[in-house]
This record gives sequence, C-alpha cells and structure tokens, in this order.
Amino acid sequence: MQLLTSDLQPASGCGPIIPRHEGQRPLRQQVFERIRAAGRIPRAELARELGISPASVTAMTADLIATGMIEETSREPGGARGRPRTALAVRPEAHLVVGMKLTVQEHTAVLVDFAGRLIATETLAGATRAVAPRALVDGIARLLERVCAKAGVRPQDLSAVGLGVPGFVEAATGTVFWSPVLNRRAVPLGEEIGRRLGLPVHLDNDANLVTLAELWFGAGRTLSHFAVVTIEHGVGMGYVLNHRIHRGSRGVGMELGHAKVQLDGALCRCGQRGCLEAYVADYALAREATTALHWSHHEMRSLGTMLKSLHDQAEAGNAAARSIFQRAGRYLALGLANIVNLFDPELIILSGERMRYDYLYAAETLAEMADFCVATGRPAPRVQIQPWGDLLWAHGAAALALAAISDRLMGARPD
Amino acid sequence: MQLLTSDLQPASGCGPIIPRHEGQRPLRQQVFERIRAAGRIPRAELARELGISPASVTAMTADLIATGMIEETSREPGGARGRPRTALAVRPEAHLVVGMKLTVQEHTAVLVDFAGRLIATETLAGATRAVAPRALVDGIARLLERVCAKAGVRPQDLSAVGLGVPGFVEAATGTVFWSPVLNRRAVPLGEEIGRRLGLPVHLDNDANLVTLAELWFGAGRTLSHFAVVTIEHGVGMGYVLNHRIHRGSRGVGMELGHAKVQLDGALCRCGQRGCLEAYVADYALAREATTALHWSHHEMRSLGTMLKSLHDQAEAGNAAARSIFQRAGRYLALGLANIVNLFDPELIILSGERMRYDYLYAAETLAEMADFCVATGRPAPRVQIQPWGDLLWAHGAAALALAAISDRLMGARPD
Repeated sequence: MQLLTSDLQPASGCGPIIPRHEGQRPLRQQVFERIRAAGRIPRAELARELGISPASVTAMTADLIATGMIEETSREPGGARGRPRTALAVRPEAHLVVGMKLTVQEHTAVLVDFAGRLIATETLAGATRAVAPRALVDGIARLLERVCAKAGVRPQDLSAVGLGVPGFVEAATGTVFWSPVLNRRAVPLGEEIGRRLGLPVHLDNDANLVTLAELWFGAGRTLSHFAVVTIEHGVGMGYVLNHRIHRGSRGVGMELGHAKVQLDGALCRCGQRGCLEAYVADYALAREATTALHWSHHEMRSLGTMLKSLHDQAEAGNAAARSIFQRAGRYLALGLANIVNLFDPELIILSGERMRYDYLYAAETLAEMADFCVATGRPAPRVQIQPWGDLLWAHGAAALALAAISDRLMGARPD
Repeated sequence: MQLLTSDLQPASGCGPIIPRHEGQRPLRQQVFERIRAAGRIPRAELARELGISPASVTAMTADLIATGMIEETSREPGGARGRPRTALAVRPEAHLVVGMKLTVQEHTAVLVDFAGRLIATETLAGATRAVAPRALVDGIARLLERVCAKAGVRPQDLSAVGLGVPGFVEAATGTVFWSPVLNRRAVPLGEEIGRRLGLPVHLDNDANLVTLAELWFGAGRTLSHFAVVTIEHGVGMGYVLNHRIHRGSRGVGMELGHAKVQLDGALCRCGQRGCLEAYVADYALAREATTALHWSHHEMRSLGTMLKSLHDQAEAGNAAARSIFQRAGRYLALGLANIVNLFDPELIILSGERMRYDYLYAAETLAEMADFCVATGRPAPRVQIQPWGDLLWAHGAAALALAAISDRLMGARPD
C-alpha cells in the first residue's frame, strides 16, 4: 500500500485545535497520537496544537523517548529548505506487528513496523466456505509463520496481531457474532487465536479496518469526520469521528449494509428483508442477472463470471442488464444520502475491489444522492471513489494492532 | 421540569473513565463540565474520574471559585448519612439566561439560573404562519421583556439567550436555512436577534434542544451515547456522543425525519420524496384520514380535530383508520432500527407532544423495530417513551445558553 504522506497537512496556527479523542484520554497518550498522526512534529507545534505548556510536552516526550516509543529526528522529509528543525517521530523499530484480512477466498497478511512501514506480505488460499473455528485458527497460524519467515523475524518477536473479519464483530471482546468465514455463531475468536499464537490478538469488522487504514495512512490524516463505505460481497461502513473510529455504544454499529431501504424488501443474506446490501452487493446483482442474460438455471456460472457478463451486456446496450445496475445505483444513492442526512460527514470514501462495475458509481448515482440530501443550499459532501486490494485491509488490521499497542503502553503508565 | 438528580451515578473506581468530550477541550473546561453534570462532586472524585492529579484539580477549582462559577458546598442532597463531605457545585446565581421555543402556534420562554433552576416562564401566541424575520424578532423581544418582568430582573442582567427553532438550523452561525416560522430561506436569525436584544444569542434546531435538556437535566446525566427522536409536526432527532451533542461536520446532520425510507416514496413537506416524516408526522397521517373517515374534502377540519377523530375511529375498530397508524408505526420501526443499525445507541428516547397517538408506539412497533435490527443475539437497545410540553424545549434552549456561557468563559482563559 502506498503511504500517502503527501496528504499530511499539520493544522495551521490559526486553525481549530485538532480534536483527537472520542473518549477522554491521558494527555501523554494524546501527545503520542499526535506525533504518530503528524509523522514528525516539533515540540513547540505539539504544545500549541494540544493547548498545553512546552514544559509539559518536554516532560512527556522525554518519558516516551525513554521507553523507546518515539525518537528525536532532525531530518526533514523531502529535503525542505532552511535549517533542519529538531522534531519528534515514532521509532519504527520499537514494535513489529502482523495484520491479516480473512475472507472465504483467501487470507492476506502484512508485517509492518511501529511507523506502519511494510516489511513483508503473504497470501494463502481460504477454505472457500464457512469452516469451524479450529480450522480457521490453523490457517491463521500457518499464515503467521509464513509471513514471519519471509520477513526473517520470529513470531515471538511480534508485539501483536490484528485481524479483519467480515460480518458482525465486537472489537472490544474479539467476539464474532456472525461471519461468512465461520460455520458457528458467537465465536470468541480473538481469545482462541490469542491462545494458539501466544500473542495479543485484536480483531474487528473488516470495513472498520479499511477505515482505520484511511485514518492512519490515507485521507483521514487531515479529516476529522468521514465515512468509508465498502462494496463487494457485502456493503460495509466505517465512521471516523474526531479522528477516531466510532463503533457505537456496544461495538456493533455502522451497519449500513443492513440499514433498511425498503419495507418488506428484497431478502438479504443476513436473513432480514430490505437491507441495502440486498440491492447493491454482488450477490444481489447476480439474482437478476440470469433473467437479463437469458440464461437458464442450469447455466449458472461463478459469481465473478456472471457479473462480468452482466457488465459487458450493460456496456453493449442490453437495457435489462443496465436496469439492474441502475436500480442498484439508485438504492446506493439513497443509502449514501442517508449517511449524509444522519451523520453529516466531511467526505464519503467509496472503497471496494469491484469499482469496475462503474454503473453503480456513475455521475447519475452521485447526482441522485445529492437530490436525496437535506436541502440546505450547500453542496453535498465530496464522494471519493477508491479501488483497493486486500493489502489495504491487511494494513488496516496492522494499524489496529499498532493502536492497541500504544493504548496498552499508555494504559500501563497513566499520567 | 423535574430535575432527575436521582439519575446521577458517578463512575465507580474500577469503571471506565467517563469520556466527556467530542472535541479536545482544555482541562479546566473538563473540570467545570464534570462538576456541572455531577451536580455536586468532591475534589478527590473529580481527580480520579478525569485521570489528573489532586494538585491540578485544586489549582483549577480554585480558579473557578475565584471567578464565581462554582462554589464549595458541604450539604449532602437528600440528607445522606455519614458526616458531610465538602464538594464542589455550580454557583446558581452566577448567571441568568432565557431559553425560548418558537413554533408557528406559540412562543414559550423560561428564565433559569446557572444551575438550570426555573425562575419564571411565559408564553405568547405565535403568528400561526411563516412571517418575515423582523416580525419574528419583534415577537421574541416582547416575550423576553415579559419573562424578565415576571422574574423581576432586567433584560440587561441576562448573560445570554438560547432559542429553539424548527427546521434546518446551523447552530455554529445562527443561520436558519429553512423553517416553518420564517417566510424566507437562509436567514442569519441569531445575528438579527442579538443586534435587537443587545445580548449574546445562541440558536439551534429544536430537536437538538430536547436532546440538550435530556443531557443536562434528564437521562443523559448517566448515559454517553443516546438518541432522542421527536415526533409531532415533523420528525426530529438529536444524538449524544460522549456526553455532547453531535451536530455533524457542517452542523446539519441527524435529520432522521428526512432520511429516506422509500425510493420515490410519499411527498414530504421539505419537497423531497420518501422521507420518514412523510409517513409518520401528523400531516402525513392526515393525508389518508379523510379517506378512512369517509369525509369529503369540503368537510376538512383542523389537523388536531382530524387526528383526534382518526384515533377515536381506530380505537373503535375502524380497520382503515387502524391501518393508517399501523403503516406509520411500521415506517417508524424501520427508521428507529436504522438508528440502531447505524449509530448503536445505548437508549432511544421517543419524545413528543402527540404521544397520545399510541398506535404509533404500540408494542408491535417496538417488536418490529427489534426485528429490523442487526441480529447479534443481543437485545435491541431500550426505547423510552417520554411525553413533554414546550417547557422541556425551552429548558433545552436555556441549557444551550448556559453551555455557551461556560464555553465562552473557558475560551477566554485558556489553560
């Protein structure tokens, strides 16, 4: 994944103080997180942005330097002019973590350092179906060994492992209420993996991890309120509020894919009716594809083949094929407008592997979204379309592990 | 309004630190807000909850006492046993504010002290239609004089005025993009009223004010994430996140009434189609009432009369009348479930003057809401049904003014 350091714009002197915390956190942690987000930052700027005295900053950063979490640096990235100013930066070699993304098709891992720099990556095939927790844990252990071997580090040198799991996941406890990769419900997966690996394990909903990747390494470095909507097998959403992922009061919110867009509507794979996902996800498009393509049921192909044919037909002018994408686009417009009407984000990032089905994201979809937004006379928020691969999600999983490490280090030494 | 002091449950020693701030605020302000929310709190408890040293608390509270914002008190409310402990409390007489709620029918005002205690209340008839900004400001000035006279204080003794306005309101600038009480769009109403009254004026969407009232004086004293949904002429919503009202990135979010629940659905008074309000608000019920009641168009009565007849008929077994309430209830269930699926609140407070139309809030509506919520195996969040009068909204408007005063006092003396 590309680290978008060019996105980095430290707050100017007259701008608002950057609000960084959903909860109230010790000042020492605020100092660390500000350094992490900035990449590098002089002490004076840190004091000003956080609204604390230079003496406090000096004391707290001395402590962070002593524990090896941050270091002083005088190198300006990009060779800026003027004499180099001493600044603070996260110490990359302080910790190593692995991030993984699990799907039924494949499992991807990245090994990164404390500054989020990629050291190694590895991919193994998935089981292609829901499996028992023990089988999933076996696969995870194998993947961890492989990516460590590739990086030349031992698993016991890692500080933590982060995992992205599709479905309904409670990050705080590591419980998976439901996931397409597991054949059981309410699995304490985080605990089971942790016991097997002998390492701290953190897991979260996969959409939250794309969001975390944007927050740590992408657009989120300069924005405080934004939504990330992921579209592929399902529809996911992550929301950043004041520079932190908002998970709701019980850890399972932001389920845009299962927000209802039609009373008694189409059947969703979650078992309920009228969910946005049941109109927009790939399986939803596939349901009407055989009709549009004039295929009989015994001609059923793989989902990928079917969607590709459907898209080709739509491009070639098949009105029925077009109407499938157009209806999906209209429901997507409605779902996105509801995000605007309810959350009022600065930006919506549309993120997915399947952004090639461009009918969904046509100008008319975005125009219709604007028409569905509350009329204040101001333009609708920006929508940014961003394709990605599994590496982004795995990077988000690594960011989850890194965030947990810094939280743990801070929590162990309260101010 | 009853001050629910019994709701107050200070965090226990081993519980999570109370997250109080959406943005990052100076510690001194955090100290003040914690005292305000607690009612009375000993210094040691304050230090523990905020995770700061007792010495810091002593220094900051000394400063707050010197400026007259808080005071020491040794009186235990309710006559608790044991020797009285010295605690800190807001000084009621430090400031006086007026809160007002404006509707097309009437304008209500309350005059309260810095601790939120009611001193006087006054109501004047509204214009019963949208009027020019100047006429609205005239009415506000008259109401202010009356409520001050009743309390025996001069308008110039007030520290601020808070106003609740229906419609699309940007609190930060005091701009009203659209409101049923105004015959123009995009009015800088806060500025115009402030110039006329010679006092600091703060205004907000009326649903946010009900929410603020709950946050300062009601259920919100012990909850950090909750939604307030108001149902009467329209459908409004306020959301509290980490003990503060969440207004979105541009100040116009949480528009549940204009979230879309049906593609190309019923026409809403905002001009768009498929808004929740267009199925649930009183004017939406009235649209089908003549059909159910077998009234011809020339028999049109007032909205109140029509809805009362409709409700009576439904009670008496008229299936058509029942189906109107039942459909509205189903869409409301869908809207509330979407709040759960997207925001994951601890509690939803349903608040409104028209809670007598109990079909809307029948057990079956709440059961259907639960069926529309993401299936995690846990119960849906609690829904609390709370009728109110205009005094609650006016009290919320007063809380808005009080919050602005404390923010201003803090902002003027940063740490």
